[in-house]
Amino acid sequence: MSSEFEPRDPQFKARVTQSFNEQQVMQTIQAALLTVEPGVVEIEIPYQPELTQQDGFIHAGISSTIMDSACGYAAFTLMPAEARVLTIEFKVNLLAPAAGIRFRALGKVRKAGRSVFVAESELWANADGCDRLVASMTGTLMAIYPK
Amino acid sequence: MSSEFEPRDPQFKARVTQSFNEQQVMQTIQAALLTVEPGVVEIEIPYQPELTQQDGFIHAGISSTIMDSACGYAAFTLMPAEARVLTIEFKVNLLAPAAGIRFRALGKVRKAGRSVFVAESELWANADGCDRLVASMTGTLMAIYPK
Amino acid sequence: MSSEFEPRDPQFKARVTQSFNEQQVMQTIQAALLTVEPGVVEIEIPYQPELTQQDGFIHAGISSTIMDSACGYAAFTLMPAEARVLTIEFKVNLLAPAAGIRFRALGKVRKAGRSVFVAESELWANADGCDRLVASMTGTLMAIYPK
Amino acid sequence: MSSEFEPRDPQFKARVTQSFNEQQVMQTIQAALLTVEPGVVEIEIPYQPELTQQDGFIHAGISSTIMDSACGYAAFTLMPAEARVLTIEFKVNLLAPAAGIRFRALGKVRKAGRSVFVAESELWANADGCDRLVASMTGTLMAIYPK
Repeated sequence: MSSEFEPRDPQFKARVTQSFNEQQVMQTIQAALLTVEPGVVEIEIPYQPELTQQDGFIHAGISSTIMDSACGYAAFTLMPAEARVLTIEFKVNLLAPAAGIRFRALGKVRKAGRSVFVAESELWANADGCDRLVASMTGTLMAIYPK
Repeated sequence: MSSEFEPRDPQFKARVTQSFNEQQVMQTIQAALLTVEPGVVEIEIPYQPELTQQDGFIHAGISSTIMDSACGYAAFTLMPAEARVLTIEFKVNLLAPAAGIRFRALGKVRKAGRSVFVAESELWANADGCDRLVASMTGTLMAIYPK
Repeated sequence: MSSEFEPRDPQFKARVTQSFNEQQVMQTIQAALLTVEPGVVEIEIPYQPELTQQDGFIHAGISSTIMDSACGYAAFTLMPAEARVLTIEFKVNLLAPAAGIRFRALGKVRKAGRSVFVAESELWANADGCDRLVASMTGTLMAIYPK
Repeated sequence: MSSEFEPRDPQFKARVTQSFNEQQVMQTIQAALLTVEPGVVEIEIPYQPELTQQDGFIHAGISSTIMDSACGYAAFTLMPAEARVLTIEFKVNLLAPAAGIRFRALGKVRKAGRSVFVAESELWANADGCDRLVASMTGTLMAIYPK
């Protein structure tokens, strides 16, 4: 996958993977890190009844969990090695019920500054061999530098 | 707790409680329904390492999970008995790290229409006997009526 | 311009144009309707000192004015003839200072339902022959039907 | 009006007033600065047909213009003298048609950091001697420091 972005830290994949592995919630919801490219990260979960709302669909907060991490790590790929990443806000639109067997959050950086990053995630639900867009997120992330 | 809102269904508490119990994700994250009043719902989770991000704080998506349900059920208290509730979008601001021993989402209806509701949640973290505001949500909910 | 959307009213261009002409604020800010296709609307304003904030850039609220109308009319192109369009909420990210000689809001429908539409706008600033993305909006619109 | 916030610059009122006067769009829409207290700013406009959408209500973008400036200047009251203020994003909910004779945006700081501020605005429409809440905004602002 090509990219318009140039990573400032060549070890960005290892850095993202390590941080992802430290997010215990990712194991709790069985999330897998699929893609880590400059400015682009994909995270996937399988359908699990334990993560559903009253109609049997994945809860919007769980959808937000993988969309937020996808946004955050997409931004993190572009940060220098010494920075940490912090989400300051996000906005989610729920476009269709989160029904399916797998759910993939595709996060992409929209704007990369020194401190402020804007990233977007799409949530794609897979069912019957088809992918359907079920939610979208726009988030603002900050790079935090050691003092 | 008094309220400016008049519920259209006197059985609103039973209706909210039943739906909450059907959200399997609420059991997964050990959420408890604390308050169900007209236009106001509170949901609480204890700190759990299984729900954390890389720094040991509750993940923003999990915070969103209880804030979204608090918004949704706050709206649901005001809907007629035959309606279902659907979140169409929300916006979250992360004001401080979600550190503490308990996290309480306080959801309140801001505007109640026939179809469209606007609700807000605050997320309060309890630590050392103090409550601290760590996140806020504004959400738009819809009442879905049978055809 | 091709489109994935099929308009329900073949007179959608006339309907959008008439409504746009009734928005007096569009004349106040010298806005022009550039494109009206199924699910896609473009609106442009020239730079005007009368619309600036303290640093001489176009005020974020004015940027929002044309982005909101672009989202709303993009949704309106897909509504049946008897419907009115209403914005219920939007979210704006300001990616760069709104500096330039012309500002073009490109609105596109992301999801078209019977009642609820989600649309997105990008704001492109033109300066020195180049277009630069300076803001983005995600909005939720409703189709209001006569009773 | 008392306040939980302590301004870092005792000249904050003069600083806000000067910047407000430099926003040319405020004169264009006949905006007046009503209140400037630590963490709180109010801005008002009279009804003007020149600022309306197709139904004769104030356009949501114009409502956003005074709500954004109210959020921004509320944050600005708490910044040190050398800082500039920048909006990075905001979210608007439109709760009712903006009908009335005067429209007052009340902006309040929700969280004041060194760099990142979160503020909220309410838009109150005055008609027939009554104030009615017609819109709300949550915004993220940054303090920009000279290098």
